[in-house]
Amino acid sequence: MNEKIKWLRNKLLGLNMQGIIITNPVNIRYLTNIDAEGIFLVNRKENIFITDSRYIEHVNSTLTIEDGIVVVNSKDLSLEDYENFFIFCENVGFEENHLTYAKYKEYMHKFKINNFEETEGIIEKQRMIKEPYELEAIKRACKITDDCFDYLKGFIKVGMTEKEVANEIERFFLANGAEDLAFDTIVASGKNSSMPHAVPTDKQIEAGDPITIDMGCKVDGYCSDMTRTIFMGFVPPQIKPVYDFVLKTQMQVIEMLKEGTNIKNISKMVDSSIKLNGFEVMHSLGHGVGLEVHEYPFFGNTVDFLLKENNVITDEPGVYIPNKFGVRIEDTLLINKYSATSLTKSDKNYVVI
Amino acid sequence: MNEKIKWLRNKLLGLNMQGIIITNPVNIRYLTNIDAEGIFLVNRKENIFITDSRYIEHVNSTLTIEDGIVVVNSKDLSLEDYENFFIFCENVGFEENHLTYAKYKEYMHKFKINNFEETEGIIEKQRMIKEPYELEAIKRACKITDDCFDYLKGFIKVGMTEKEVANEIERFFLANGAEDLAFDTIVASGKNSSMPHAVPTDKQIEAGDPITIDMGCKVDGYCSDMTRTIFMGFVPPQIKPVYDFVLKTQMQVIEMLKEGTNIKNISKMVDSSIKLNGFEVMHSLGHGVGLEVHEYPFFGNTVDFLLKENNVITDEPGVYIPNKFGVRIEDTLLINKYSATSLTKSDKNYVVI
Repeated sequence: MNEKIKWLRNKLLGLNMQGIIITNPVNIRYLTNIDAEGIFLVNRKENIFITDSRYIEHVNSTLTIEDGIVVVNSKDLSLEDYENFFIFCENVGFEENHLTYAKYKEYMHKFKINNFEETEGIIEKQRMIKEPYELEAIKRACKITDDCFDYLKGFIKVGMTEKEVANEIERFFLANGAEDLAFDTIVASGKNSSMPHAVPTDKQIEAGDPITIDMGCKVDGYCSDMTRTIFMGFVPPQIKPVYDFVLKTQMQVIEMLKEGTNIKNISKMVDSSIKLNGFEVMHSLGHGVGLEVHEYPFFGNTVDFLLKENNVITDEPGVYIPNKFGVRIEDTLLINKYSATSLTKSDKNYVVI
Repeated sequence: MNEKIKWLRNKLLGLNMQGIIITNPVNIRYLTNIDAEGIFLVNRKENIFITDSRYIEHVNSTLTIEDGIVVVNSKDLSLEDYENFFIFCENVGFEENHLTYAKYKEYMHKFKINNFEETEGIIEKQRMIKEPYELEAIKRACKITDDCFDYLKGFIKVGMTEKEVANEIERFFLANGAEDLAFDTIVASGKNSSMPHAVPTDKQIEAGDPITIDMGCKVDGYCSDMTRTIFMGFVPPQIKPVYDFVLKTQMQVIEMLKEGTNIKNISKMVDSSIKLNGFEVMHSLGHGVGLEVHEYPFFGNTVDFLLKENNVITDEPGVYIPNKFGVRIEDTLLINKYSATSLTKSDKNYVVI
């Protein structure tokens, strides 16, 4: 049995749960390395992955006997099999944020569960602390992202559309060792940059446009996340003070982050500073990064959470002037005992192309 | 108010529901054309989309006054606002397959809902009947898929990896007018083709390999879905009878489909035929295609569903010989009053490259 499943079993013991049904595919991947549709059950004796004919061969080919996971085809299970899985389990956990109401009802009935209990993100919380192999994958994804940014400086030209740039980013990622995008790339130029989550359009890039590029890729399942706002031809004077403010904020945050930092305090500080400077707070300061591009911890003014060594998070303050322009600068950071290290390393000074 | 929302309001009347909370993003897109995170509420008087700062500008820019949709930033809502949304609504519907257990509890409490009722896919079922503009988008996605298949015949060479071919398919789609993949492309060569849902690997394509390519793209949100099994260099004699059987089955199914056909009967017929020929049934015969690549109707031996004009479905029988090879042939079909028309039109005879 692998270390992660051992950890889970210990954790369940402490919660007085004798079993759990794991339905979040990211948690299944984290615990078992299985990347297929199905549900993962842990009961008193066994670890069972229930899937269907489409995935049986693939799943069996990724597991070894050491994993200690029984793979079952759902069509081979009788009603009695379901009822027996948790037969001596008083309390069984479920993932309330990753189980639909319909499935909650179905499972409770099918597995004859007495006490079906919410587990409140126990696995997601464990995922915050990255192991060496996880950091390795995130670093490789960050490196490809930096390389892509370097490449874009020579690639983007006046007259290109935002969509063309976004497509090229995807092509670059796939051609350079990434297995996928980490999320839909944002390329927002000129006025479009005032929308924090703009979708790339057919708008052509013009001289004097700020261009906000928010991109990331996946390596071995792990994500990178980086944003830069760059300039076509020249930096319009009205954008300079905003850019300087965002960059100063972003770098000050890096200085303040380390094991023990409470993200509530950092969030409050940055939000106040944005407001004091006459701008509006449009999104939170950051979030965890790992198998998901947005995962625990999520920054917020009420989130009382002390960072720990080997957390990986983003630091991404942004200022958006409606209908005019926006600036966001974001890095993926590793939290150390006494500092934070930026895993994305692209230039943050005015980049004029 | 648009026709789709009018349809929904009538439908709710018939179900004695005075309101609904729509949480399935695909249904929100279908009803409102909004492609952003948020929830869509319909109550006695209003249609309300609740989103957050990240999407407000984008959503407002896609809606006009004629849409009759009020867009609200969640951070501007008080507890009282939530309690008032459904104040005179006796029964409020929710999407039990698209609401987590955690959100179900949260919404029931926050909106002070008395009777929170499962709606059993009313919108998904309506989505089965495609309107002209929807068919137009699907046809364009199918055309790009056919063009990609033509292109691949010249592109794939011995020594290329499955991943390289899959990446090239994605590049082709994006460069030729598709906005996205409809799903993760399958490129499975040689023995890998025996896994219906193989993930592209670093395996190189060799002479004598069958290559199963399952691909589709999105245009204006609508999907295409097509599979071909082609051959590198020559058709191995042991694969020929399997190929002939799958192709004959796939074409016979097209002949039998039209308005009024019961998909249960077709499914049973094909499954029996696969078994009678000594093979194993590994997946269902087909599924609906639209804003989602897998949507209603889903084929199955117990699914009593009569096809209707303007349904769009796949026809994809497959035979898989474990550890040896597999053959699947799939088209996206339009159901007409007296026939079915294939919207993907690529060659289905032995394609040897």
